[in-house]
Amino acid sequence: MPHTEALLLPLSLIGIIAASMTAALAAGRRSMDWVGVVLLGSITALGGGSTRDILLGNYPLAWVREPYLLGVTTIAALSTIAFAGGIHRFRHLFLVLDAIGLVVFTIQGCDVALKTGQPLAVVIVAGMISGSVGGVLRDVLCNDVPLLFRSELYASVAIVTGLTYVGGLTLGVSPDVVTLVALAVGLTFRLLAIRFRWEMPKFVYDRD
Amino acid sequence: MPHTEALLLPLSLIGIIAASMTAALAAGRRSMDWVGVVLLGSITALGGGSTRDILLGNYPLAWVREPYLLGVTTIAALSTIAFAGGIHRFRHLFLVLDAIGLVVFTIQGCDVALKTGQPLAVVIVAGMISGSVGGVLRDVLCNDVPLLFRSELYASVAIVTGLTYVGGLTLGVSPDVVTLVALAVGLTFRLLAIRFRWEMPKFVYDRD
Amino acid sequence: MPHTEALLLPLSLIGIIAASMTAALAAGRRSMDWVGVVLLGSITALGGGSTRDILLGNYPLAWVREPYLLGVTTIAALSTIAFAGGIHRFRHLFLVLDAIGLVVFTIQGCDVALKTGQPLAVVIVAGMISGSVGGVLRDVLCNDVPLLFRSELYASVAIVTGLTYVGGLTLGVSPDVVTLVALAVGLTFRLLAIRFRWEMPKFVYDRD
Repeated sequence: MPHTEALLLPLSLIGIIAASMTAALAAGRRSMDWVGVVLLGSITALGGGSTRDILLGNYPLAWVREPYLLGVTTIAALSTIAFAGGIHRFRHLFLVLDAIGLVVFTIQGCDVALKTGQPLAVVIVAGMISGSVGGVLRDVLCNDVPLLFRSELYASVAIVTGLTYVGGLTLGVSPDVVTLVALAVGLTFRLLAIRFRWEMPKFVYDRD
Repeated sequence: MPHTEALLLPLSLIGIIAASMTAALAAGRRSMDWVGVVLLGSITALGGGSTRDILLGNYPLAWVREPYLLGVTTIAALSTIAFAGGIHRFRHLFLVLDAIGLVVFTIQGCDVALKTGQPLAVVIVAGMISGSVGGVLRDVLCNDVPLLFRSELYASVAIVTGLTYVGGLTLGVSPDVVTLVALAVGLTFRLLAIRFRWEMPKFVYDRD
Repeated sequence: MPHTEALLLPLSLIGIIAASMTAALAAGRRSMDWVGVVLLGSITALGGGSTRDILLGNYPLAWVREPYLLGVTTIAALSTIAFAGGIHRFRHLFLVLDAIGLVVFTIQGCDVALKTGQPLAVVIVAGMISGSVGGVLRDVLCNDVPLLFRSELYASVAIVTGLTYVGGLTLGVSPDVVTLVALAVGLTFRLLAIRFRWEMPKFVYDRD
């Protein structure tokens, strides 16, 4: 296992756990039952990578190949129910873990597309899909307009992370270094965006 | 054709018809037009199996291989429009037919995953997806939070049915017997759940 | 390149641009941010063909093979933001461009299914999916009940276009002629439907 994978695997597990837990809280706000909580957590945590792989025809999907991931998302969602009383005290931690997930999923998504020889634009899109579609599925299943489309620079962070990663590789920098730099850039951008409430300009159109 | 398939095929057609008809009623509650009724019926009846096959990369999909299924769902949906005036008298029958669909789709979903050599957890998930995703698509397209996530033990019945089926096969019981037992267990569980209004505990989280 | 493809390619680009721009306006009505506008435009414009190809297992998807399409949808969506102030003056033009998109996507969808040797019903369904699923995705992501299910003969136009196209080919008419006839039939039907507010009858069911 190359160094970068040894780094990305635990970070991506952190991202999967964080995604399942934040989705479980969203399920709780809708008073879903325990099975609904587990399903929403699992779909949110694994849906981005699955969508990417379906769009690229890249089979088998990660959770089919590594079913223990289903156990990870299930336990993360159920733990959220168990510890719901105190979980708000860790909400800043969650934002950091969620940011780690976004950035790591994006890098992994770029990697998958690079390995199947996709053109550059598709690599960036594959990274963005991996990082952000899970949250879109969560919001659609909760009957909300996806946050991705409205705020928070989520997609922008994925694009910048992907460009940094692919740009570094194209310049011949070693994969280990590029991965660390892309992680740092993406994470910094995301956390600054949260801290200073950066937002994209909105497009407001109110004619019929 | 083995005995079990001779049993499952007509039962799965019953399930497809019941799913298309209940979706057509949901479409009528939203005042959809006739084409919308047919589309919603077809997507609901065939969407679970199609989603499973897309996730597993199992092509061609059932309705592509057997397009007569599209005729079945279309006729079922249009019949619902024609007989809407008296259909509420049969709502108990519908609950039974719908339960048959849930259990049969689940068994078929497990079978597909078993034939492609998936690990146990994926087999159970494939069964659950086959049995319940059609209703999720119906609810999302009707702009509701999916019932699956909120009540009715739908997913739980699929899991118990799948575990019974796979467990029996693993113990070496003949497929015909296992199929009948899984059908009986799943159907009984579902009908008892409806009769006695069993529900999973809910997770209610109301902090921001 | 045969004559028909030389005709369909520019028309399909017009359809893609029109779909991305009308989706961008829908995004503006929801006050989405600029990234959301681009994402919704791209998903709407490319989602129908992608869904068809995923259902048929027809890889790679068009925008993976021809990533310049992502540039087309992005520029179309951003132009909509730039010119939003005056765009309502062209709304009749948009209806025509959107109708061209519907009809051309339908013909292309039928073609893809014919080339992979699908049975007739699947060819028609593939055409309908190509022509209309993009709008369904747009409406679901905007948290609306899809227009497709409620009004406007959108799906009906796709079915008539598909039947004309496949019927002509089956009768041995030259592909160039059949394409032009199907385009004319579909476009005329759609524009008459808009002009005279033709609607399918609705199914209204208000029991519980």
